[in-house]
Amino acid sequence: MPVGGYGEVFPNSRKVYITGSRPDIRVPMREIVLEAKHADGSPRTLRVYDTSGPYTDPNARIELGRGLPPLRRAWILERGDVEMADRTRPALRAKPGRAVTQMYYAKQGIITPEMEFAALREGVDPDFVRQEVARGRAIIPANINHPESEPMVIGRHFHVKINANIGNSAVRASVAEEVAKMRWATLWGADTVMDLSTGRDIRTTREWILRHAPVPVGTVPIYEALEKVGGRPEELTWEVYRDTLVEQAEQGVDYVTIHAGVLLRYIPLTEKRVTGIVSRGGSIIAAWCLAHHEENFLYTHFAEICEILRAYDVAISLGDGLRPGSIADANDDAQFAELETLGELTRIAWQHDVQVMVEGPGHIPLHMIQENVERQMAVCQEAPFYTLGPLVTDIAPGYDHITSAIGAALIGWFGTAMLCYVTPKEHLGLPDKDDVREGVIAYKIAAHAADLAKGHPRARAWDDALSEARFAFRWRDQFNLSLHPQRAIAYHDATLPAEAAKTA
Amino acid sequence: MPVGGYGEVFPNSRKVYITGSRPDIRVPMREIVLEAKHADGSPRTLRVYDTSGPYTDPNARIELGRGLPPLRRAWILERGDVEMADRTRPALRAKPGRAVTQMYYAKQGIITPEMEFAALREGVDPDFVRQEVARGRAIIPANINHPESEPMVIGRHFHVKINANIGNSAVRASVAEEVAKMRWATLWGADTVMDLSTGRDIRTTREWILRHAPVPVGTVPIYEALEKVGGRPEELTWEVYRDTLVEQAEQGVDYVTIHAGVLLRYIPLTEKRVTGIVSRGGSIIAAWCLAHHEENFLYTHFAEICEILRAYDVAISLGDGLRPGSIADANDDAQFAELETLGELTRIAWQHDVQVMVEGPGHIPLHMIQENVERQMAVCQEAPFYTLGPLVTDIAPGYDHITSAIGAALIGWFGTAMLCYVTPKEHLGLPDKDDVREGVIAYKIAAHAADLAKGHPRARAWDDALSEARFAFRWRDQFNLSLHPQRAIAYHDATLPAEAAKTA
Repeated sequence: MPVGGYGEVFPNSRKVYITGSRPDIRVPMREIVLEAKHADGSPRTLRVYDTSGPYTDPNARIELGRGLPPLRRAWILERGDVEMADRTRPALRAKPGRAVTQMYYAKQGIITPEMEFAALREGVDPDFVRQEVARGRAIIPANINHPESEPMVIGRHFHVKINANIGNSAVRASVAEEVAKMRWATLWGADTVMDLSTGRDIRTTREWILRHAPVPVGTVPIYEALEKVGGRPEELTWEVYRDTLVEQAEQGVDYVTIHAGVLLRYIPLTEKRVTGIVSRGGSIIAAWCLAHHEENFLYTHFAEICEILRAYDVAISLGDGLRPGSIADANDDAQFAELETLGELTRIAWQHDVQVMVEGPGHIPLHMIQENVERQMAVCQEAPFYTLGPLVTDIAPGYDHITSAIGAALIGWFGTAMLCYVTPKEHLGLPDKDDVREGVIAYKIAAHAADLAKGHPRARAWDDALSEARFAFRWRDQFNLSLHPQRAIAYHDATLPAEAAKTA
Repeated sequence: MPVGGYGEVFPNSRKVYITGSRPDIRVPMREIVLEAKHADGSPRTLRVYDTSGPYTDPNARIELGRGLPPLRRAWILERGDVEMADRTRPALRAKPGRAVTQMYYAKQGIITPEMEFAALREGVDPDFVRQEVARGRAIIPANINHPESEPMVIGRHFHVKINANIGNSAVRASVAEEVAKMRWATLWGADTVMDLSTGRDIRTTREWILRHAPVPVGTVPIYEALEKVGGRPEELTWEVYRDTLVEQAEQGVDYVTIHAGVLLRYIPLTEKRVTGIVSRGGSIIAAWCLAHHEENFLYTHFAEICEILRAYDVAISLGDGLRPGSIADANDDAQFAELETLGELTRIAWQHDVQVMVEGPGHIPLHMIQENVERQMAVCQEAPFYTLGPLVTDIAPGYDHITSAIGAALIGWFGTAMLCYVTPKEHLGLPDKDDVREGVIAYKIAAHAADLAKGHPRARAWDDALSEARFAFRWRDQFNLSLHPQRAIAYHDATLPAEAAKTA
């Protein structure tokens, strides 16, 4: 993995920064230097969105184990609305009665440095970002305890984003390996990572990931809560969950998946499904509800959850615990019943100035994708949609990065704000480093295709630069402009350039 | 490569046949035998469309080099409308004044064995196939000199089909390797192959491929014509082209790409493009037109071309010589001007009872795909559309099987009848065996996703069978039902099943 530059991963690329309205707003971009020249002899360049963090900056001083510099610390402290949490570790939280969320500031008409930073990354006006955050159509996941992260915005009027899931399990991977996987995913273009670790070292793994992550980090707190009760869903309690949530908020988790829409009365709707409940969080909650014959405690305590999260600016990702796990179950009653509740919860979160996005499936055939997005937008009043794929067929295990990139491109075009990647190992096993890269690249393709279709002003320049290089037989530029230069070079070198050129 | 069965490529699969209205109509299917049992203890099975030909039949006797048995010979001869062509090799052609095309028979109300065969493969009524062929909305590429091929139908009311390009070049590959590549592509699911060979041994290579191909074979005759005039486009003549066309028709080529829509006056429309003319055939014709300042001879001689092809039942694939080679050039004036001419040529071909499909691009952003299909359907009166991809972004060389599978799934859903595959080596080099498989599988995914979205009655059963196996943890069934069982097994075995199961 490259350090102090993009190395062989992105040849002829260099880190540049756009400085905002104050010197500490420095927005990173990756600048690709071409062999093609301007009329004055200077090289042409293309700047692309960069998620790799300070690791690729030759001037950054990073010591692995000590974490990244706290880029946002000053912005957070100068607002004067936080204090030290009364805990063993030095975490921040809002002063009593204060909201410290980007949504709160946006509603007050304040353009935060975070908003400006995100706007410069997108190439849009900072007040437009503020407006979108204020009305809930975009979020900036930015926990005050994760000052290392570079602000970014998730919403349908911005670049479509992609998330990479990482996380160890009882089976394999050390903490250092998970940090490496996070860096690897963001080097290739992951806009956020979710730490889905299970097993013993959840907290330590998360700490390491957070301190080294230049992107927002999401989690599913019920996984850790479940570990605390020995893996027995029926022994979960609101108190255990609440404490877990506070601990994660104080560590710096930027967004949390909460399966608060899995209501007791919806569970029977899954009985006739081909694949029942496939969401892990959904299964845990369903098991708890059925064991106690009580309503989901995440639903009944949702206002309290919001109170906690607004004190740290943790965004909520409303989990779709009843998402379909197969083409057969797509867009069914269970899924859409839960969606109605997610709409209700979105409004409650907004009342608390808590940022929200809404998770979506999963497995949907092509002709049902648009309905899925449009219902989500209507029911959840355009809160950002965050989907897993969707896979458009079930028949290709081993190729689900492809089956799902098809659905992801389409759902991104229709308005989904963030796409959760799927790797080739989906349904079969845990992704290794190569799988992570292949998943991220498939999703960069889907997200970029959606950006092109939505007319994002910066999207076309990349395609045009590459196509011009191709037409002019500037092979090096074609490689360096591609999502995976080393692969393009290797494929090219396997046969002859003159022949390859003909197959355009 | 397996012989006499599906071997390790498709474990637990066996060849079965559905017999039609006469004993020599035996339609192959691949039957996957599951570990799941019926109530009576017999194993459950799933039958899927099979393109692998007699090679996977343990009872077939095939000697490589001697070709496949001439499945259709009796059907062709018993119609009494063919005679031996007066040539050195024993080829058939229509008796003087007779048309021997499936379209001609369909218009006469005749359900040929070819139509019935194709109907049984699709699970539809044979007369429905006849109707679709009669009105030009479907074609059955079935040259009377390629009796080895198993009839199939290309049209938007049937399974979406995929084509794999093969063909050697001056650079590499022997004749035997090309035959192996054809068998390999059809084993994985290619519905037709196009032989795009260039270089010295074009004719021999084609002969070997035809005699061993259980699927229709397409070519681009202008490539061979160009070889005959030393590779100099300006020296092409109608006579050289015509003789080439006759030779290929007598060899048994089932469909030919003809770039008859590249008119002299359209060429200037490509001047301001980012990527000019990228179709090889289009470039050859444009060079000829510009050198002579004359109208494209394929256009001026189009009626003669139809007269020739109707005597062998060679279908025309109207080439899109001005297709866009980049996102920047999609749906531009040059492309749509040529399309108008392709509409005109479609009508002329139909007047001669010649079967026609129409080729389409290439590179199209997501939001322009539907317009592309709808204009083609309107202008060409629903003649089957046959597209290359399209790629939905240009930024991912090395991954163009994915960038294009996204576009292919979408355009297939919108009504495209056949998808020409793109391999990972597109734009970079010549595909090897692995690339061919990866391209075919990406396109099987796209075509199947489109079938699901269009509601093809047989599509859902496959997804449901696999999803049921997944939910029941029947791992072997899940592997055996997948498009690439060995890969699914390898990925599964890389980690532990219990963990993998959780990531659904």
